[in-house]
Amino acid sequence: MAKKKLNVGLVGYGFMGRTHSNAYRQAPVFFDLPYSIGLKAVCARNPERAQAFADNWGYESIESDWRKLIDRKDIDIVDIASPNDTHHEIAIAAAKAGKMVLCEKPLGRNAKEAKAMVDAVEAAKVANMVWYNYRRVPAVVLLKHLIDEGRLGKIFHYRTKFLQDWTISQDLPQGGEGLWRLDASVAGSGVTGDLLAHNIDTALWLNGGISEVVAMTETFIKARKHNLTGEMTPVNIDDASLFLCRFANGSLASFEATRYARGHKALYTLEINGEKASAIWDLHDLHRLQWFDHTDEGRLRGWRSIHITDSDHPYMKNWWVPGLQIGYEHTFTHQVADFLKALGEGKQAAPTFRDGLAADYVTDAVLESAKSRQWQKVLG
Amino acid sequence: MAKKKLNVGLVGYGFMGRTHSNAYRQAPVFFDLPYSIGLKAVCARNPERAQAFADNWGYESIESDWRKLIDRKDIDIVDIASPNDTHHEIAIAAAKAGKMVLCEKPLGRNAKEAKAMVDAVEAAKVANMVWYNYRRVPAVVLLKHLIDEGRLGKIFHYRTKFLQDWTISQDLPQGGEGLWRLDASVAGSGVTGDLLAHNIDTALWLNGGISEVVAMTETFIKARKHNLTGEMTPVNIDDASLFLCRFANGSLASFEATRYARGHKALYTLEINGEKASAIWDLHDLHRLQWFDHTDEGRLRGWRSIHITDSDHPYMKNWWVPGLQIGYEHTFTHQVADFLKALGEGKQAAPTFRDGLAADYVTDAVLESAKSRQWQKVLG
Amino acid sequence: MAKKKLNVGLVGYGFMGRTHSNAYRQAPVFFDLPYSIGLKAVCARNPERAQAFADNWGYESIESDWRKLIDRKDIDIVDIASPNDTHHEIAIAAAKAGKMVLCEKPLGRNAKEAKAMVDAVEAAKVANMVWYNYRRVPAVVLLKHLIDEGRLGKIFHYRTKFLQDWTISQDLPQGGEGLWRLDASVAGSGVTGDLLAHNIDTALWLNGGISEVVAMTETFIKARKHNLTGEMTPVNIDDASLFLCRFANGSLASFEATRYARGHKALYTLEINGEKASAIWDLHDLHRLQWFDHTDEGRLRGWRSIHITDSDHPYMKNWWVPGLQIGYEHTFTHQVADFLKALGEGKQAAPTFRDGLAADYVTDAVLESAKSRQWQKVLG
Amino acid sequence: MAKKKLNVGLVGYGFMGRTHSNAYRQAPVFFDLPYSIGLKAVCARNPERAQAFADNWGYESIESDWRKLIDRKDIDIVDIASPNDTHHEIAIAAAKAGKMVLCEKPLGRNAKEAKAMVDAVEAAKVANMVWYNYRRVPAVVLLKHLIDEGRLGKIFHYRTKFLQDWTISQDLPQGGEGLWRLDASVAGSGVTGDLLAHNIDTALWLNGGISEVVAMTETFIKARKHNLTGEMTPVNIDDASLFLCRFANGSLASFEATRYARGHKALYTLEINGEKASAIWDLHDLHRLQWFDHTDEGRLRGWRSIHITDSDHPYMKNWWVPGLQIGYEHTFTHQVADFLKALGEGKQAAPTFRDGLAADYVTDAVLESAKSRQWQKVLG
Repeated sequence: MAKKKLNVGLVGYGFMGRTHSNAYRQAPVFFDLPYSIGLKAVCARNPERAQAFADNWGYESIESDWRKLIDRKDIDIVDIASPNDTHHEIAIAAAKAGKMVLCEKPLGRNAKEAKAMVDAVEAAKVANMVWYNYRRVPAVVLLKHLIDEGRLGKIFHYRTKFLQDWTISQDLPQGGEGLWRLDASVAGSGVTGDLLAHNIDTALWLNGGISEVVAMTETFIKARKHNLTGEMTPVNIDDASLFLCRFANGSLASFEATRYARGHKALYTLEINGEKASAIWDLHDLHRLQWFDHTDEGRLRGWRSIHITDSDHPYMKNWWVPGLQIGYEHTFTHQVADFLKALGEGKQAAPTFRDGLAADYVTDAVLESAKSRQWQKVLG
Repeated sequence: MAKKKLNVGLVGYGFMGRTHSNAYRQAPVFFDLPYSIGLKAVCARNPERAQAFADNWGYESIESDWRKLIDRKDIDIVDIASPNDTHHEIAIAAAKAGKMVLCEKPLGRNAKEAKAMVDAVEAAKVANMVWYNYRRVPAVVLLKHLIDEGRLGKIFHYRTKFLQDWTISQDLPQGGEGLWRLDASVAGSGVTGDLLAHNIDTALWLNGGISEVVAMTETFIKARKHNLTGEMTPVNIDDASLFLCRFANGSLASFEATRYARGHKALYTLEINGEKASAIWDLHDLHRLQWFDHTDEGRLRGWRSIHITDSDHPYMKNWWVPGLQIGYEHTFTHQVADFLKALGEGKQAAPTFRDGLAADYVTDAVLESAKSRQWQKVLG
Repeated sequence: MAKKKLNVGLVGYGFMGRTHSNAYRQAPVFFDLPYSIGLKAVCARNPERAQAFADNWGYESIESDWRKLIDRKDIDIVDIASPNDTHHEIAIAAAKAGKMVLCEKPLGRNAKEAKAMVDAVEAAKVANMVWYNYRRVPAVVLLKHLIDEGRLGKIFHYRTKFLQDWTISQDLPQGGEGLWRLDASVAGSGVTGDLLAHNIDTALWLNGGISEVVAMTETFIKARKHNLTGEMTPVNIDDASLFLCRFANGSLASFEATRYARGHKALYTLEINGEKASAIWDLHDLHRLQWFDHTDEGRLRGWRSIHITDSDHPYMKNWWVPGLQIGYEHTFTHQVADFLKALGEGKQAAPTFRDGLAADYVTDAVLESAKSRQWQKVLG
Repeated sequence: MAKKKLNVGLVGYGFMGRTHSNAYRQAPVFFDLPYSIGLKAVCARNPERAQAFADNWGYESIESDWRKLIDRKDIDIVDIASPNDTHHEIAIAAAKAGKMVLCEKPLGRNAKEAKAMVDAVEAAKVANMVWYNYRRVPAVVLLKHLIDEGRLGKIFHYRTKFLQDWTISQDLPQGGEGLWRLDASVAGSGVTGDLLAHNIDTALWLNGGISEVVAMTETFIKARKHNLTGEMTPVNIDDASLFLCRFANGSLASFEATRYARGHKALYTLEINGEKASAIWDLHDLHRLQWFDHTDEGRLRGWRSIHITDSDHPYMKNWWVPGLQIGYEHTFTHQVADFLKALGEGKQAAPTFRDGLAADYVTDAVLESAKSRQWQKVLG
């Protein structure tokens, strides 16, 4: 018996449009899922490029206005991979139209937008998910299991960074296609929403809630040429963002994101220290988990570099054989698989829009603390 | 204008059947190719499982006899991913039928079989390729470029290993589906053909020819239950295989493969030392190249860990953005892309069957030297 | 012609008494110095143990009262390696007696004590030095040279940690010999003065001044048995201490020290990111420097692991041959060598007491900010 | 009560003269030993340099003829740190004179010389030891304990290398002081005796006996200027040496030493693979042991990087505190300590001259096999 097909309408064809499209193609091949997926339409303002994207990825049709996409009866899932300033309007309309809504992170440009999005999907009772893909790295999922099993014991410390170096040059312009992340009016903020939001989402998932933060941000290059005007324009994003906080479990934490850390391309790292064990993970070697277990025999204690490619590691029995690593794109594939599996069981896969809102509350507090130079409570 | 479609008939649906199928699906999406690919038929003895495989991967039809597959007019490419003892018969028949032939490695169970296969494809003038996929790891390709540019200078040493640990248990049976690699009548040899052949192919490509070898092999577990008979049966494969040799360029080398190196799953490593620079690569972190450049300023010389994810690294501009790694499966995707590109230019992508034969000549000499306890000339 | 001999009187025979004594013995053998050293006296309250220490290390005599040591005419250098609460009184008296004064870090329990010590040595015009030994790690000195040469360009980020895990057990008592570092009345503070002071001293040296900080501290275990009373007593030290700050050069920084980071014994790490290059160093592999140079050819950029054992690396031509690493103790030997060399040239080796005071001003601000929950100005 | 003093007469003041002298000074300070050590005399042909060496290290007197040194009644231990061609004559004479004899490795230039040395010390019943110092690296000793405890189970593989790159330049001369290792008439052989002998000694100790080998050597640069004549002279040493062998325990091994591996300064590595566990060690990070334990929980298995600085690690309670590494020179200090401890217990510390002879038998077989191009039996 054929599986029910769910049809996807994708908004946006940039970097994230590619990762999502790949995930839709790969998930049903590598995972046994309760639904099949139809790549029904891709929506973008430039019809020629939309068509080229559709042809390449196998979308059946294109739209140039997202409202039309939402109106279509043959679309079950609206997937928002367009710039941040479009998220809330599209998501709310899609929810009202009864569509399932998947949305790139950060959910809103700020918690206010995100809250409206949560209200919309919850009122409409539609399945919803935010693409915080790093929750689906097998090494990170294994760590989640270990934490939940109590293998780390009481947690004392959490530290996490997201380091890049691609905006150091003064000659890099801001704004427009490909560079909207450098324009806060579109992106909402700089690295706080783009990078630190990933660190925050994973941390809330692994280590629980944060009640207040003290933060510091910096804009190293004060003006750049804006691509949409050709004019030198003040830079309105944060280039770097750091904060300290305490988690509800009593642990202390430091967070940092920057695009000015020469030598690091996408170095998302996290470390958690518990009474009984500690773990370290980083995105540049995403197929490994560093693990220290204090219950090991004393003279033989050491950090283990676990190569996360065995069949008893999360997701890995669906891929190749031990020793053969997967890559970045697979996190999205896992997320599609988990979304459909949960749907088949009448459940809602995390991170939901509500989870996305929780991250936005923290990023709002971070940006506010950086301005006020005070400890700032996290709302929500 | 639509591209010409080339239709693939795949023989075998095991581990390699999956990697090839994924490559056929992914290559046209991520690379701009002169042909499209049709997944026309998969051929295997068990029709139910063949059908399930076809359904999952999108093959249009199934066959249970490879001769019928070869007879079909709608098949352009015959891809042989079945056990080693089937390679030569299928390949020769396919070539005679005028099909392009792709074949898993090792090409034959021995050089005699491989030579007949080379003769067949060359007589038929059909495109042919052996799936030595590690030639398509971006880090390894970068190393090839550096060698060809003379960046290493005169080469003094080459050392390479392929270490696994999955057959250490006495309780593991031999033979039959999934375990035919432990039966030399099917596989041709043990680790020499299965693992060391990879090391040899890459080495011949990177460092040139080998004229003679001195080798040592071992079978640690002397008898195992055979899956096809249920009887304890003498083990006829080599569990470990080591050899020393000199390359035509005067460099000295050591090779080793084993399935008894506890702690290593698929640790293919290679190191090359030249007068001016050296490089190290390993499969457990395939997205990195270790590079030492003696022309660097003295006090700042050190091994560089290059994260091979930038757009100026081989193949990488077609994937994601800097810092985001790809995995094992992508090597096959690259191989499909290169095969089709070469075909479009009227060229023949390497490694050809002739290259595959060169590796078989070396493995033959290794096995012979281990028996004779003498230095053994490499034929060919 | 015999060199002039400088006679040392050491106060304290604990861990630091050993490192200093080793340095006095080794420095004249491995470095060509303008003075020889006499191990004249060791001073400690317990005469039997003082005598045993003297016998082992070759001190000619013992004292049980540091005032008597200072009164002795045959002592040129008073070296203070006793607990922190004794530093200021001994140092001031020694300076008044015209002795050169070397003092373990932190200089005082707080900046007030340290300021009085600076005033004393500067009034007496006696040579003085604080044992911030990590300034003498060859890798760190090389980094200092690279920064001073402008090889990193404009600095954007500095991040540094000192992670230990030896106080996690509730059963560990506080106070008394060997554990006075857990009693703030003796130590001044917890990890802020003991560990973070090292990070601060190195940072001030490498990256310049800090004008204000925002900090957070924690005492995870609230009460421990006190060794001097046998009573459960509130713990008055900080177990963990984190702060954010901006340096005068505009770079952003995060600092952290803790004794609750399971898996780390003495993991002092530092990283500095500049426009043109970045560097990372850590104490667990102190003989290496990680170096990333953006001016390297694009496709070959990567973090270099420089094995700091060559003759053109700082201090290393005086030790063994390339490839052979030195260890922790050598940093003290280098410091003795540098102190005597500077003395022979009529100069004052850093870090002086004034440098030690600068670190104490920062630790004071950190502790104050943690209490006030406000950004706190660094005095001095 | 004062300990009995043993007086040392050192022959040679080169690199090894320095490491031994340091060990004699340090061992009694850091270890509780049954004897004290007197640095009585250093012997070398050049009296001025001998005197400078004596002054620096604290030797009481000098000799310029080793025969006179051996005649002295006040010398208990003759320590031979002069070039290899002097070992046998001095050692035999010293033994006949009833002196304890310590000798640098390799024991003889060949097994014939070494055999005569063994006969001499055994006939004279004098304590004797060869300076194979890598047996005293704490990480290597821990590995020895683990092997002896059966923690690795049956051994399948051993692989070891010693890679250097300091002789690659054609401009480097051979012979004379500092470069006698490049002249086989003095050194006995090239890397086989200089480097590979270390690998062999450790392997025999850790993994048992070797009965036959097959080897390959190379001299990359055929002629160099000789320092003693100023003439271009054929190079008579092996620049690289590789061999394969089986150990008595059935394990397979590969050995390699070279001075042409660009990027490696003194990279002595060893790996041992057992049924239950594996270990890796290397000299460039000598304070770490890599350990893989298959009995760990499956999903958490990984290579542990053990930082060998804890008080329950061999020798380490005598040094500093956890996390603080020691270096190369300490291996010699440990060897002196063990020699004196064994002497106090009426035992003989290993490696004895007989152990040194065992290594020479293997190096002889290696050199012979490289010439004969045959498997060669190891005598002894």
